[in-house]
Order: sequence, then structure tokens, then C-alpha cells
Amino acid sequence: METTLNSTTAQVITPEILLNHWQGHRALTRRTIEAFPEEAFFNHTIGGMRPFSGMVMELLGIAGPGIKEIATGQSLPLNEHVEHGNKKAKLLELWDQTTQIINDYWELIKPEQFQKSIKLFGQYEGTVQSSIFYFIDNEIHHRGQAYVYLRSLGIEPPAFYER
Amino acid sequence: METTLNSTTAQVITPEILLNHWQGHRALTRRTIEAFPEEAFFNHTIGGMRPFSGMVMELLGIAGPGIKEIATGQSLPLNEHVEHGNKKAKLLELWDQTTQIINDYWELIKPEQFQKSIKLFGQYEGTVQSSIFYFIDNEIHHRGQAYVYLRSLGIEPPAFYER
Repeated sequence: METTLNSTTAQVITPEILLNHWQGHRALTRRTIEAFPEEAFFNHTIGGMRPFSGMVMELLGIAGPGIKEIATGQSLPLNEHVEHGNKKAKLLELWDQTTQIINDYWELIKPEQFQKSIKLFGQYEGTVQSSIFYFIDNEIHHRGQAYVYLRSLGIEPPAFYER
Repeated sequence: METTLNSTTAQVITPEILLNHWQGHRALTRRTIEAFPEEAFFNHTIGGMRPFSGMVMELLGIAGPGIKEIATGQSLPLNEHVEHGNKKAKLLELWDQTTQIINDYWELIKPEQFQKSIKLFGQYEGTVQSSIFYFIDNEIHHRGQAYVYLRSLGIEPPAFYER
């Protein structure tokens, strides 16, 4: 099927391009995490929102487990907390592990699965495609918020268009 | 070709679903604009960034003209400024006109165009698909920033997951 998909020109986007698109965004988010001073990453907030570390834990809780569920059909409850000991290095380590998990499990997703219905984490209904788009959109949304946090700290965020 | 695309199950996303995805995001951005007090929309900033009205003018400069160029092949320079007289109603009017422009010109985009190369506004190289994804991603990015602006004003933004 992969061959069929890539050999036709009438694809809006192929699974491979979508994976690269997502990983490009994830690389940018990683640079955004790196741009934060350690303390601000865990403490800086605006308007009662979470610090960026809290948003990153949400992204980690969604991406790896979400793709595993899509690929294997095995559902687990959403978990948005990890032990990080206020160390950016720990969350960056988990970020990189997730990069590999996404690449590995992506290979197991069949092209004909993308428009199939799914109930992710036992509660979020959609298609495989709409779920993956949600993962990516949600990451862009929170990273955009992190850009404001960085600017309010006088730090220039990484270039949005570089992936 | 449209029929061929919709009749196969091995599509990651169809042109129609991508259009609905984008317009869903644009409806959420419209509600975000509405959530701003008129003055804050044009004046409130954090960390030296633009007020949300400036970002909205960028989004308006990209979306309609971008889709027109993709559909017709006619390129114009990017224009991120409009006369708004500090009236939200003016930008909302342009927002709604753009909604219609996108719907109208989308019909002219052929399925086999999405992976074709394009140099948008005479300067941004990519494929039709990567360009449209950039339009959407850039909107999500700036709307996420607007959420922080709203929170910093003590205003609850619209729900991110509602489209």
C-alpha cells in the first residue's frame, strides 16, 4: 500500500510527508524548550497559565502513547505527569525517546487506517488522521504560548519557519 | 479526480477534509478575535510583540491571496496591512470575506496539485500542500499567542478543541 500511495501524484499528503512534518515541528519545540532558562521553564507563567514544562508534559503524554495506541489498538488512560525533578534534561531525554517511538510505531500504521474511527485514550473520538492532526495542532498552539513566555523574559524564540 | 480521491480509503486526508479542518481553525480564530476588547485587540502586547490585530492582518494577507495564487497561478507580493481604523468589525468583515474566498478558490485546486512545487508571493518555496499547512500552522501559532494575551487580560479564551 505504501508503494501505491507514493506512486500516485493525487495524494494531498503521504504518511511519510506527514511524519516528517510532525517531526519537524517537534524539533522546533525541542529548540523552544532549550531556549528557556531552567528555572523559568518550570516556574514562569502569565495570566494563571501553566509553566511551559506543564505543557511539555501534556505533549509527551499525548504523542508517544497516542501513536502507540493508533498503531497497536491498545488504549491506556492519558497521563500528563512525569517525574522530572525540575530538570530540563529529563524532559529533553523523554522528548528524544518519544521521537524514536513515533518513528518506530509510525511504520505500523497502514495507509488505509488514517480515515478510520478511533476513541483515543478511551475518550477522544475522531479519525486516526484527525487525532494526529490534533496532536500536531495542540503542540503548535502551546509552543506559540511558550514564544510569548520567552519574549516576556527578553529571550528571542527560535525561528518559526525553521524545522 | 475528486471522485477517485474520495472513493479510495487509502487517503491520509482528502482535499475536502483539509478544507474543513482549516475552516474549523479559522472559525476558532474568529471567536478569539471576538473575545478581545476592542482597544486591547489593537494595543495589548507582551514582550515587544505585535498586538493580535497585527497578527490577524498577517493571517488575512496570507490566506485569501495564498489560495488565489495556488488556484490561479497568479502571484502578488505579500501585503500584511489593511486600513482598519482600529475597528474589530472591519477585520471581522475581511475575515468572513476570506472564508468565502477560500471556499470558492479551493474548488479550483486539483488533487494532483498538492505535491507540486510553488513559489508563493514570489518568494516562499515549497509544495502546495506544505504551503497550505504553513498557512494553518502559522494561524494556530499566532492564535496560541493571542490566548496568552487574553489570559493576561483576565479573559478566558474559547475552547481550543471546539472548531
